[in-house]
Amino acid sequence: MSQSRLSIRLDLASGHRIGPGKIALLEAIRATGSISAAARKIGMSYRRAWLLVEEINQSLRSPAVEAATGGKRGGGASLTNVGERIIEIYRTIQNTATSSVKNECQEMERLARKAKKSE
Amino acid sequence: MSQSRLSIRLDLASGHRIGPGKIALLEAIRATGSISAAARKIGMSYRRAWLLVEEINQSLRSPAVEAATGGKRGGGASLTNVGERIIEIYRTIQNTATSSVKNECQEMERLARKAKKSE
Repeated sequence: MSQSRLSIRLDLASGHRIGPGKIALLEAIRATGSISAAARKIGMSYRRAWLLVEEINQSLRSPAVEAATGGKRGGGASLTNVGERIIEIYRTIQNTATSSVKNECQEMERLARKAKKSE
Repeated sequence: MSQSRLSIRLDLASGHRIGPGKIALLEAIRATGSISAAARKIGMSYRRAWLLVEEINQSLRSPAVEAATGGKRGGGASLTNVGERIIEIYRTIQNTATSSVKNECQEMERLARKAKKSE
């Protein structure tokens, strides 16, 4: 049976936000070793990916993503320990929160239509 | 001490979504007794509020919002039992999920800067 899913965004005390888009980008950087390849992998423009990386780094005490030597476009990029930890904490939040409300989600599904009406 | 908050969107199996915006609209309709007053209350255009109400009702087996006699703009609107229940389930999801990940949110705050850098 298909299930409902939670999409979770963390609104930090500072006003910064961490949600599924930023986490997907961090995971793609980890997988590809570069911001441009990560952007391609998840269908994001290079410019947007770069701005999001800046935003992520600005929001943290120490950066999540480090550019390798070779400059912005030339070299690769990799996650720092902080970047790895951010992904890990976010995934734990997603899994724990989802498990904690399984019954409520099932009840919501019972009130919902089975399929989206076609337009 | 200021805290991080979870913003939660439920992605239903049908593809429909229920998130903070729709719930705030339902709560405002309950508080004001009309879609137009609800829209004003939460700073949403009447058109958008009306479309969201249609979308909410379409996504459910039976509607969450009922128009009172007098027509779309003339009369009031009120929540059905299903509408009340949707709010209640969503608020339970939000509270339960938030409690379940308190430690992880605190850890995320420790990695984050205290304040947003001014532009």
